[in-house]
Amino acid sequence: MSKQFDNVSVVAKANVYFDGAVTSRTVLFADGSKKTLGIMMPGEYEFGTDSKEIMEIQSGELRVLLPGETEWKEIVGEGEFTVPANSKFKLEVRKVTDYICSYLP
Amino acid sequence: MSKQFDNVSVVAKANVYFDGAVTSRTVLFADGSKKTLGIMMPGEYEFGTDSKEIMEIQSGELRVLLPGETEWKEIVGEGEFTVPANSKFKLEVRKVTDYICSYLP
Repeated sequence: MSKQFDNVSVVAKANVYFDGAVTSRTVLFADGSKKTLGIMMPGEYEFGTDSKEIMEIQSGELRVLLPGETEWKEIVGEGEFTVPANSKFKLEVRKVTDYICSYLP
Repeated sequence: MSKQFDNVSVVAKANVYFDGAVTSRTVLFADGSKKTLGIMMPGEYEFGTDSKEIMEIQSGELRVLLPGETEWKEIVGEGEFTVPANSKFKLEVRKVTDYICSYLP
């Protein structure tokens, strides 16, 4: 069976960024934590974080420039990276990318 | 508070159609029913149904040609249409469209 999140709430409306090139759905957990499940179309993006974020790539192809880094990290297929709170990171998405973003306290 | 679905399960991986131009997330309800929450980028699409579907447009701009119809139905902003089981329908999406699809028995 494919991975799923149980006993959660899902916000009906999508989060839409970059004219829809990046969209996500917000999933709320009973313990008060939050994840977004998102899709990124090919393109170049810069994002800012409020909280610390773990980005889990479920499928896709992209590279990421994390804050303070000078080398891009390549992800093909599955992968993961962590972004500190209150920082910015850049993404170059080459193929449609399906991600799970976890917001940490 | 924005509309949300409570006590549901959400499948982690996205459903991806048309090279990512149409994507959705599957939401499973305790009563066994299912909805998908989706995004359609501008473009022209044809879909087929297995079960009867109610498509609720939360935001966007599109027109739909329902099976057996000769006139396109225009939706700007919010709207809704129903598609019979085992049929095909066409969509012309003009602006990024956020939808909820309910699958009926």
